[in-house]
Amino acid sequence: MGTIRTAACLGIGTELLGTDRLDTNSLEVTARLESLGIEVVAKGVAGDTVDGIRAVLSCLAGRADLVVATGGLGPTEDDVTREALSAWAGRPLVEDPGLAAAIRERYRAHGLEMPPFAVKMARLVDGATPLPNPSGAAAGMMMERDGTVVAVLPGVPHEMREILDGELVPRLSAMTAGERVLRRTLFLAGVYESDVERRIAPLYERFGRRNVTVLCSAGTVRIVLRARGPEDEARRRLDEMEAAFTEAVGEDLAAVDRDDLAGIVVEQLVRRDQTVATAESCTGGLIGGELTAVPGSSAAFLGGVVAYSNGSKVRDLGVDPGLLEREGAVSEAVARAMAEGARNRFGTDWGIGVTGIAGPGGGTPEKPVGLVHWAVSGPGGTRASHRIFPGDRASVRRATVAMALDLLRRMLGEEVAHGG
Amino acid sequence: MGTIRTAACLGIGTELLGTDRLDTNSLEVTARLESLGIEVVAKGVAGDTVDGIRAVLSCLAGRADLVVATGGLGPTEDDVTREALSAWAGRPLVEDPGLAAAIRERYRAHGLEMPPFAVKMARLVDGATPLPNPSGAAAGMMMERDGTVVAVLPGVPHEMREILDGELVPRLSAMTAGERVLRRTLFLAGVYESDVERRIAPLYERFGRRNVTVLCSAGTVRIVLRARGPEDEARRRLDEMEAAFTEAVGEDLAAVDRDDLAGIVVEQLVRRDQTVATAESCTGGLIGGELTAVPGSSAAFLGGVVAYSNGSKVRDLGVDPGLLEREGAVSEAVARAMAEGARNRFGTDWGIGVTGIAGPGGGTPEKPVGLVHWAVSGPGGTRASHRIFPGDRASVRRATVAMALDLLRRMLGEEVAHGG
Repeated sequence: MGTIRTAACLGIGTELLGTDRLDTNSLEVTARLESLGIEVVAKGVAGDTVDGIRAVLSCLAGRADLVVATGGLGPTEDDVTREALSAWAGRPLVEDPGLAAAIRERYRAHGLEMPPFAVKMARLVDGATPLPNPSGAAAGMMMERDGTVVAVLPGVPHEMREILDGELVPRLSAMTAGERVLRRTLFLAGVYESDVERRIAPLYERFGRRNVTVLCSAGTVRIVLRARGPEDEARRRLDEMEAAFTEAVGEDLAAVDRDDLAGIVVEQLVRRDQTVATAESCTGGLIGGELTAVPGSSAAFLGGVVAYSNGSKVRDLGVDPGLLEREGAVSEAVARAMAEGARNRFGTDWGIGVTGIAGPGGGTPEKPVGLVHWAVSGPGGTRASHRIFPGDRASVRRATVAMALDLLRRMLGEEVAHGG
Repeated sequence: MGTIRTAACLGIGTELLGTDRLDTNSLEVTARLESLGIEVVAKGVAGDTVDGIRAVLSCLAGRADLVVATGGLGPTEDDVTREALSAWAGRPLVEDPGLAAAIRERYRAHGLEMPPFAVKMARLVDGATPLPNPSGAAAGMMMERDGTVVAVLPGVPHEMREILDGELVPRLSAMTAGERVLRRTLFLAGVYESDVERRIAPLYERFGRRNVTVLCSAGTVRIVLRARGPEDEARRRLDEMEAAFTEAVGEDLAAVDRDDLAGIVVEQLVRRDQTVATAESCTGGLIGGELTAVPGSSAAFLGGVVAYSNGSKVRDLGVDPGLLEREGAVSEAVARAMAEGARNRFGTDWGIGVTGIAGPGGGTPEKPVGLVHWAVSGPGGTRASHRIFPGDRASVRRATVAMALDLLRRMLGEEVAHGG
């Protein structure tokens, strides 16, 4: 076999040709191939028919050094990927005694006799290499024809992943040109995209525009750094890039290679044995929802009030009714009072308060749809911020959650820095 | 051109060959084609190269009567779909005077001179039919070669959709065998999948197994009904199916062709001028988050308490500390007390209370991970339910939200039924 530089992904399954499912396996396959320096140049999807699979496979095999196919390896009648591969290769299917024994053993371990149809899963295209499946009966296989390598994996995502990482990647690794593509992601929150772009733009030329991707979504920015070359060299390059970009973005950097703001905040709170409570209006409970998505968050999160009405803001959070009247419910003063009210009511070290107009209705010329005020109250005092977010109700709310959690993250960071 | 019975989708764009984007346009294209009775038999993705697009297009054109391609029609250098089509068809690109005038006018309307590169978007493969773009400069086109029809649309989703619905579907409609495939979705919540299956299984034979798809996710079930035939006949058949399945599932049916439980509940509350408040433990605010995702929900949702600690359950919801000690925080009695406590504190007509063990830690033999109790308190009393949900923390919480909202939906429905 020659050196593998290009690849194509093939998703197999009639359900992938309907209106609600996409070939998500191909994303994971692509990530692994890219890390090996193999470029994905095409993708295809075929239904569960021998002719269809064979035709799409032929096309893709003509375009790339490697085709990675997933799906259609189960025991039922509509799984015909093996037959299609056999037809494409012009070689018969033969039973692999090792696979047959392993399948029989799997059934026995569950106290079952192997049903006759299951033996199908022990069949390989003659001459193919089996790719054993540690957590399922359907093994994958790998073969070659006319200079193209074809690997087939089961479609069940966790089985696909295990065989990909445990069997396929190590084998492919020896067949590439030795280059790797490594990635690292800087995660930022509480920033304007344009501001981030302005600060990192001078670095583009130094590291190459195509090695930096900036992805934005509701209140957060991801800077994906990429380096290609022999593994050690790529890693060194990535370290260099990380250092340069980290310096450019400063304290806006929330994390590297993770993007769970709530997890970051909960970890910091637990580490210093501190607690937090929330007072939410326009987010309606989503900040509490995010914090409690973190396993073990009960050590740091004591609770919150969803104060969706003015009555609740006064009664449950102790917001001054006169303040509400003077400033309006959506105001910095009320956000501050809510954060402090949550802190007092729950007796926590930190309180988060959020109030805004998520839309689509409720805006005025002075307070337009998208205006949100948030505040965090802590041992060193209360800090507030606000922004007019673009987008629909859902994105205004998502962005607000990120902003409020990020303000807490920053204040926790400063406490460490100052308290040292 | 012959009758179109089969189709393939082709997504064009190098970004669709990376690790984070899939060809989601193909799902919408497939839905429209299916409604025309056209079956999608294959899919492909090509990067932004003339050779790549041409090769994948050739493959797909050999497999189907119609290929619908999306993407690569913009004005920049990397958009080469027109050139690839021209190469595939063996016909030159020619400027369409009507499209050129329309593009010039678009720029003029924004007070701009048309830049030289933009004229590219006025070019069509010689003999192709333009598919005008009402909200963008890049028009689509439609052509035929060797009995295969190829249509190309811009990749920007809302432009793609407008041309698909406004131009392509009406044209294709005249080229099909006259059959339509119509769908209707029955949405159920608060049910066990196996129980639904058991009740609807007798109907499979009557309507055909392949015309019924059952989709399950955290606490909800969707029954997708499908009918194929001339439009009137398919619609009649679907009405008949809906009636039969509705009878089989009874009051478990939450809605037809919609699945937003929170929206359904908020609408019912607003209609009868009633209000609700929440008391959440393991869901941490997600029920409030769902309710407030509905625009205008402030008319019905007054607020809630996220009582993540026992202290908060006692202080903020009036749960009896003795009850907490006797029954434990995760118990029917506490869920009831929480629902009633929310109703009392906020002075609402309805209260929702939820307490459970979302995991991964915190389980015991008597109260395993996944055990959740929920209750709804209303004008006619309080009702509680519980279940041990399978899955991880996120799916236990998602299922709990659906279950709690569905219990409120059922009690609202009964109130109407009994109250007349």
